[in-house]
Amino acid sequence: MIVDGKHIRSVWCENGTVRIINQTILPHRFEIFECPDHQRTTRAILNSIVRGAGATGTAAAYAVAQAALEAPEKDFIPYIDEAVRELKDTKKTLRTLFYCADKVYNKIKRSQNPEIAKKAAMLEADSLAEADVAACMKIGKIGAALLHDGTRVLTHGYAGWLAATDWGTALSPVYTAKRDGKNIFVFIDESRPTFHGARLNAWELGEEDIEYALIADAASGYFMQKKEVDIVVVGAERIAGNGDVAARIGTYEKAVLAKANKIPFYVAAPIWTIDEECRTGKDIELRDRDEDELLKITGRDEVNSIRTITVVPEKTHARNPVFDITPSKYVTSFITEQGIFSPDQIKSKYLKK
Amino acid sequence: MIVDGKHIRSVWCENGTVRIINQTILPHRFEIFECPDHQRTTRAILNSIVRGAGATGTAAAYAVAQAALEAPEKDFIPYIDEAVRELKDTKKTLRTLFYCADKVYNKIKRSQNPEIAKKAAMLEADSLAEADVAACMKIGKIGAALLHDGTRVLTHGYAGWLAATDWGTALSPVYTAKRDGKNIFVFIDESRPTFHGARLNAWELGEEDIEYALIADAASGYFMQKKEVDIVVVGAERIAGNGDVAARIGTYEKAVLAKANKIPFYVAAPIWTIDEECRTGKDIELRDRDEDELLKITGRDEVNSIRTITVVPEKTHARNPVFDITPSKYVTSFITEQGIFSPDQIKSKYLKK
Repeated sequence: MIVDGKHIRSVWCENGTVRIINQTILPHRFEIFECPDHQRTTRAILNSIVRGAGATGTAAAYAVAQAALEAPEKDFIPYIDEAVRELKDTKKTLRTLFYCADKVYNKIKRSQNPEIAKKAAMLEADSLAEADVAACMKIGKIGAALLHDGTRVLTHGYAGWLAATDWGTALSPVYTAKRDGKNIFVFIDESRPTFHGARLNAWELGEEDIEYALIADAASGYFMQKKEVDIVVVGAERIAGNGDVAARIGTYEKAVLAKANKIPFYVAAPIWTIDEECRTGKDIELRDRDEDELLKITGRDEVNSIRTITVVPEKTHARNPVFDITPSKYVTSFITEQGIFSPDQIKSKYLKK
Repeated sequence: MIVDGKHIRSVWCENGTVRIINQTILPHRFEIFECPDHQRTTRAILNSIVRGAGATGTAAAYAVAQAALEAPEKDFIPYIDEAVRELKDTKKTLRTLFYCADKVYNKIKRSQNPEIAKKAAMLEADSLAEADVAACMKIGKIGAALLHDGTRVLTHGYAGWLAATDWGTALSPVYTAKRDGKNIFVFIDESRPTFHGARLNAWELGEEDIEYALIADAASGYFMQKKEVDIVVVGAERIAGNGDVAARIGTYEKAVLAKANKIPFYVAAPIWTIDEECRTGKDIELRDRDEDELLKITGRDEVNSIRTITVVPEKTHARNPVFDITPSKYVTSFITEQGIFSPDQIKSKYLKK
């Protein structure tokens, strides 16, 4: 996507070095994080320098390919086994990470010798990256048909292009519509506790020259009620076979409010986000994250230094759930790279009998 | 209420000096702001050192009484007229400020001479302060009947005792129930953009030794959906004759989510919050506030210095509505000092034909 007028991806690999746009210090600094070996790429995933299903999957694929490039001939497979183990330990519930790592690993295992394996691994990683880009671009093209000149979109959480290898999911239709010459306005809410909406959506939309307004998380209902929102589009972490959606905390609230205000609510996600092993949202494990994520806030001060502050009293107790479940009855349709599907269509295809 | 184990009010007057708990630097510092004359009290209101309908009304009443104490004998009424004018300029839409200032002013006008007027003014201000305390205490007693041992309350915005002269509105039932020996758990959301929930509710509940959890604004739906919330209680800025409620931005969202999850939704407010001049919520003027309130965040850093930071890109566009309207159909009942009333009861009594 476009940064400073130039096209760039969120993760890519050149001559065995993985390069990642460092999400942790955006929008304060734009920095490319260099990973010359698989250990550094793994650490980048662990420390959320790269975050988001698509982007992390691509980084994970390249990490395994890097391990293959580094592996000594006599300990070739054990070295890679260890690398994959470390990699999977970073984010134990992230579907794409496991999927992409295994895809590259299987190519290595099936290769006749290390030399062939090294080439096959890097080719597979490249092809997984391209597949993510292609899926997100397709989501953009298919979703853009829902947007007209002047459409006012509300999004929640963070599903822009930094979260994918390129294009993003929820915002991909917006970027495509813009390229088609349509003027789109986007309401982005802050998406506490991580402020991903405030930090990354605002940054991306600014770079892409798309009109937007940042709003408080609790203000989205106000704008829906005032008929200033035409459509809600969000991303997803995981989709159950019955169409229930696990997504960034607060997505459920937007869905309920959209229904109360008769505003269509779309979930944009690649098909692989559907997890047939989960029949319904109840099968998706949700957990609280460290409360410090809510209690401490990092940003830049007047002289552009990065600082962490707190607004709450000492010893404040907090609960910090990361994801919530939006029941499929609140979803108008899913925007995927294979087309737009209603919850019933998803159910009939993916809900295990 | 209780601070450091001692009873204190949010605003009071001793020997002509108004004393106010400075809300702007809580919870980082606990400071009493001293106002030796009416100009300083007026400035305290203007700068939101005191905030909240009840507390501001009391401060305004005392400001007029202070003006009477200061006024020179030969320019007695003109001096007070000027003071009242300045006072009303601080917060042009705040109902209580006008109500309390006029009450004291009328006592002054009806007095035979300055000496009598000075005494009458201070007596009237004291009596308005007591009336606010009495109403809030009554709201607590009446509302506490809705809370049982173990009840889990969710509140939004900020309607604790700092917002009133004492006791508060939405939190008054919680404080009363606690004194009755019931264990109450309170979910408080941050209430962006001001962070009043995170800053003041967390501080008050901590001082009152009540169990609570701070949550992100967008997480309340999650806890409702998981059946961890038994009742929602919020405050109000203004109530229309038909029972529509203007309150802190996000209140509407909680109301819709409570209904979707079959959780009772109560509005706690003194009867004077009902504005018969407004037939419905549509008659209540809503406005956006300065976007810097959303874009800049003030808190304390690691060494306890107060700092202002920003998490967003430069030149971020924001919209910052302050209040929203909750249609009366979402309100289970109103907790007032005169009893608990359904929206229909409010309508039949206050909706002008």
